[in-house]
Amino acid sequence: MDISTLASGLDTIWVVLTAAMILLMEGGFALLEAGFVRQKNAVSIIMKVFVDITFGALVFYFIGFAFMYGKDFNGLIGTSGFMMGGDLTHIKLTITNDTYWLFQCAFVIAVISIVSGAVAERINFHAYILYTIAMTGLIYPIAGHWVWSVGGWLGSLGMIDFAGSAVIHALGGASALAAAMFIGPRIGKFSENGTPNIVPPSNLPLASVGAFILWFGWFGFNSGSTLSATNGSIGHIAVTTMLAAASGGATCILFTMFRYRKADPPMVINGSLAGLVGITAGCAFVSDVVAIVIGAVCGIAMVFATEFLESKRIDDPVGAFAVHGVSGSIGALALGLFAKPELTEGIGQGYSGLFYGGGWSLLGVQALGLIIVLVWGFGMTWIAFKLINLFVPARVSRDEELVGLDVGTHGVPAYSQDNDFIELTKLKNS
Amino acid sequence: MDISTLASGLDTIWVVLTAAMILLMEGGFALLEAGFVRQKNAVSIIMKVFVDITFGALVFYFIGFAFMYGKDFNGLIGTSGFMMGGDLTHIKLTITNDTYWLFQCAFVIAVISIVSGAVAERINFHAYILYTIAMTGLIYPIAGHWVWSVGGWLGSLGMIDFAGSAVIHALGGASALAAAMFIGPRIGKFSENGTPNIVPPSNLPLASVGAFILWFGWFGFNSGSTLSATNGSIGHIAVTTMLAAASGGATCILFTMFRYRKADPPMVINGSLAGLVGITAGCAFVSDVVAIVIGAVCGIAMVFATEFLESKRIDDPVGAFAVHGVSGSIGALALGLFAKPELTEGIGQGYSGLFYGGGWSLLGVQALGLIIVLVWGFGMTWIAFKLINLFVPARVSRDEELVGLDVGTHGVPAYSQDNDFIELTKLKNS
Amino acid sequence: MDISTLASGLDTIWVVLTAAMILLMEGGFALLEAGFVRQKNAVSIIMKVFVDITFGALVFYFIGFAFMYGKDFNGLIGTSGFMMGGDLTHIKLTITNDTYWLFQCAFVIAVISIVSGAVAERINFHAYILYTIAMTGLIYPIAGHWVWSVGGWLGSLGMIDFAGSAVIHALGGASALAAAMFIGPRIGKFSENGTPNIVPPSNLPLASVGAFILWFGWFGFNSGSTLSATNGSIGHIAVTTMLAAASGGATCILFTMFRYRKADPPMVINGSLAGLVGITAGCAFVSDVVAIVIGAVCGIAMVFATEFLESKRIDDPVGAFAVHGVSGSIGALALGLFAKPELTEGIGQGYSGLFYGGGWSLLGVQALGLIIVLVWGFGMTWIAFKLINLFVPARVSRDEELVGLDVGTHGVPAYSQDNDFIELTKLKNS
Repeated sequence: MDISTLASGLDTIWVVLTAAMILLMEGGFALLEAGFVRQKNAVSIIMKVFVDITFGALVFYFIGFAFMYGKDFNGLIGTSGFMMGGDLTHIKLTITNDTYWLFQCAFVIAVISIVSGAVAERINFHAYILYTIAMTGLIYPIAGHWVWSVGGWLGSLGMIDFAGSAVIHALGGASALAAAMFIGPRIGKFSENGTPNIVPPSNLPLASVGAFILWFGWFGFNSGSTLSATNGSIGHIAVTTMLAAASGGATCILFTMFRYRKADPPMVINGSLAGLVGITAGCAFVSDVVAIVIGAVCGIAMVFATEFLESKRIDDPVGAFAVHGVSGSIGALALGLFAKPELTEGIGQGYSGLFYGGGWSLLGVQALGLIIVLVWGFGMTWIAFKLINLFVPARVSRDEELVGLDVGTHGVPAYSQDNDFIELTKLKNS
Repeated sequence: MDISTLASGLDTIWVVLTAAMILLMEGGFALLEAGFVRQKNAVSIIMKVFVDITFGALVFYFIGFAFMYGKDFNGLIGTSGFMMGGDLTHIKLTITNDTYWLFQCAFVIAVISIVSGAVAERINFHAYILYTIAMTGLIYPIAGHWVWSVGGWLGSLGMIDFAGSAVIHALGGASALAAAMFIGPRIGKFSENGTPNIVPPSNLPLASVGAFILWFGWFGFNSGSTLSATNGSIGHIAVTTMLAAASGGATCILFTMFRYRKADPPMVINGSLAGLVGITAGCAFVSDVVAIVIGAVCGIAMVFATEFLESKRIDDPVGAFAVHGVSGSIGALALGLFAKPELTEGIGQGYSGLFYGGGWSLLGVQALGLIIVLVWGFGMTWIAFKLINLFVPARVSRDEELVGLDVGTHGVPAYSQDNDFIELTKLKNS
Repeated sequence: MDISTLASGLDTIWVVLTAAMILLMEGGFALLEAGFVRQKNAVSIIMKVFVDITFGALVFYFIGFAFMYGKDFNGLIGTSGFMMGGDLTHIKLTITNDTYWLFQCAFVIAVISIVSGAVAERINFHAYILYTIAMTGLIYPIAGHWVWSVGGWLGSLGMIDFAGSAVIHALGGASALAAAMFIGPRIGKFSENGTPNIVPPSNLPLASVGAFILWFGWFGFNSGSTLSATNGSIGHIAVTTMLAAASGGATCILFTMFRYRKADPPMVINGSLAGLVGITAGCAFVSDVVAIVIGAVCGIAMVFATEFLESKRIDDPVGAFAVHGVSGSIGALALGLFAKPELTEGIGQGYSGLFYGGGWSLLGVQALGLIIVLVWGFGMTWIAFKLINLFVPARVSRDEELVGLDVGTHGVPAYSQDNDFIELTKLKNS
């Protein structure tokens, strides 16, 4: 056994295990979303998560990975690596390209899953499949190339985003917003005079456990992004991740007790997730205390963003934009303020935030990159749905929405009482 | 710190972590099965999973491991290692025998859990305990010895089965089929004229999340089967596992949209699992594209197998045979077609599939081994239930089945509304 | 890459991954507790778990860690390490202090989560937050310092407690008992004549899956407590953990079949957990067979303890004391009987149990330490609630308890039927 074999084995199991943790987050998304929506749409939302993980993985294998991490063309797009073939020598990692693909695949599936929540309870299933292909094959990979791939133009400008507050969450959140706006609110969500109505979550225990599973997976998401087990930041990353999540959740407990006179469970769930999203960009580069601050700011911002969307009659059933879009943006910008020279020295000169003597340059490039990513996600998603809408309606019919997508689209309710025997042939031919 | 200590530490944590992931699959089985059956049997099926993990582990500790991995006797059975004692020097691993036992224990528990689903909603609890002892103490260990242990006759013939499509899943599936046939269909599953009725799943969100947990655990199942963290195949194994699962699920989404005009949630769930089962034998030995093909074939075969069993009036409530038996068989045979010399060279000469210039020999030995394993599982399970039936009835009474096994066998419903206070003494004495 | 970088990377990922597994146990606690209580309190109990993980982490960061692992003052308390600052040079580990903090943070959150179950369905939410601060900032850290920190007086006397049967579970269980007694039984739990009534668990499938997730996390809990991946005991620890859990569960299956004529699901769930709790102190130091014995004894003791509390009209809704307090105590004492010299030699001379030639000394110190920990947990919790009660009532009003804490405290039911649209403003202003 020589030491380099050992080192590469160590890195490999680290990346495989953390990738598996990120993929388990799909179970978390499924629980979270099924718990937040109404019973009559609980299966349909989970079927969308199955689309994310199945179509998402295959599309990313065939084309997405190549556009994202293939040989760079003018800083804009990758051009090799379709089906993991072609010249990928520019990827200089201790792990195999296979292993690297798996980790990145887990990421792309997370991105599309962010959108799935925003379109819950009303999107047409065929349209969702087509959008998933667009997102995992083009929209995310191209933006990801700009920031993360060798030669990408935003990365070359100096934008940093350790595990993806901008690339994953702000992009996913902006796309979720566009999709939610394009498709329009659920029937009954807003009264005729514009007052928002509460659509009570059907199963908050499931939603909560979804959050705990997501929290668990986030240790893989952030720490695993080192892609190397001997990166000295792993412990620090895990700690900032923990503190930001705790801070986001605790802040929402206190803040909703003050604002609504009740510690509001959906807000507490989303507050923890907001903290996790917010620290994703800077987990390796900011101090513990800053992580706590980021978590708290993201938690409160999520509450206001949720209220703001409601006031604008935008219906985002699980709070995808408020959690991922807003906190992702905060996280990306926070790096421009708080990146600490001692923590960023591994990645090169000039990565200090405004409050650590780095001046405005990092903040500027972070803001630029963030805006680009938000506009790209929002705009491309809008265009994608415009195109999809030419072929299949993006939204289910009024009747199908009222009966619920579980029975309407998938022919089976999420929850059945006993003695609901139905003759197989009836259902099959309906 | 010397390098060999480090290497063995690395291998140890790899195997312990992946074993824990496989054991978490019991949570996945519990959710999957509780979600698929009716409410009135949701606890009873989970109690069977508790039997699997508790009795299964103890029986495997006392006798199963010895019969499986003990010193070989004529290629047929192991003869040492009861309670981990005796001569086990033929096991030449970098991890301790303890650690190896844990991993193998997680496997045996998976095997018996496959059967638990097929007998749901009607098996007598005492009979199930006895069968668990038979399966984890004898049936599986002996077949496993033949294929996997030093000196086992099928392994010596050249049969390969990396993580157990045949040894775990085909065996488990064939046993599940025998058990389901022996016990007979649930009351009401088939009309008097033989038409199958749908027994609607009581809780599809739970079943779905069960599938995601199983998917997560499968990375442990397949990648962990290297038993060494420095095995260069780990990344490749994880990727083929991912692709086959995605392919199985995506195929079932599309295929059921075409066949039933509705993307069918139970089929999509089982399609992903079918892909995982199918790749289990060859995850280390086939290419990415072949993994996708195996996943797709297993997905479609699962749909047809489910329909076939229904047409034959065989009642397998969760599709255990269709998922594990059929896809396990496909996976074992697929190796005979697609095993790639570059990927199998680590295990020796002559392990090339028919389509990679290896001729018919590997396919022949795979087919032979598969048939042996299927016949053994089916036959021994039938015999076991014949014997068990002499002492305790294999099936609950008609009354107990109608009221449900939760209240009937375990005295408590799975789901209770509030204000169902019952005096403790009443229940105790009932 | 030099070997010490590799070794510290290996230790780091081991501790980070196992810490994440322990933190996932919060999802397990949430499911277990939400499943055991009534529907009308299912969210409120999960909100308490959110308090545990959010407030718990922050308080432990600001003060708890320092009191526990800071520079020792007379064996009584730590005095450095607030916000991870100050002199921590006495902590001599291969991992960073950051990483160490994360693992210990996961532990403290587990402790407070033990208590959350005992006070379910009736504690005032504000009181619970205050108690969480007391527990994670003072009560547990100080006791933990005595046993585990460099210079702690009980540890210096020779008390051993590998992963915390006493420090975590007995302490948590004694605190849970005090809290349950202080707050009093739920309305309706006991008839006027003192007969206990069954409050049927609202969702046993969720509770069961909670147990499987806890079981999974326990591999992190126990094996991870080595804090080093090259510790030769890891495999053995994982095996004894598995065997004790299996033994606890299997024993409860058989014992409740004998005692209640029904394999009792809540007892089986808690029996497995009791086995896990019991082996936590000795997982590294006792033999496989002793692990099985400990599991069995803990399982049976849990049944009797549950009955005993009911007979004393003490209401502990999820069995926190019976599982954690009793089994934790058994586990701590069992070490005094069964600690095996070969297994303890890594920690020094004189750590042999009574049955292995060590005489009464280890048993004596274990018993002393256990009593101290139990009295400390019980007494300090009682005092904490006395103090809290001066500011906020420890218990909700009768009306709020009857309507349920979900709607009463948090303004939203755990489970909603469709079409329960409520105008947002109504709820907000209520």
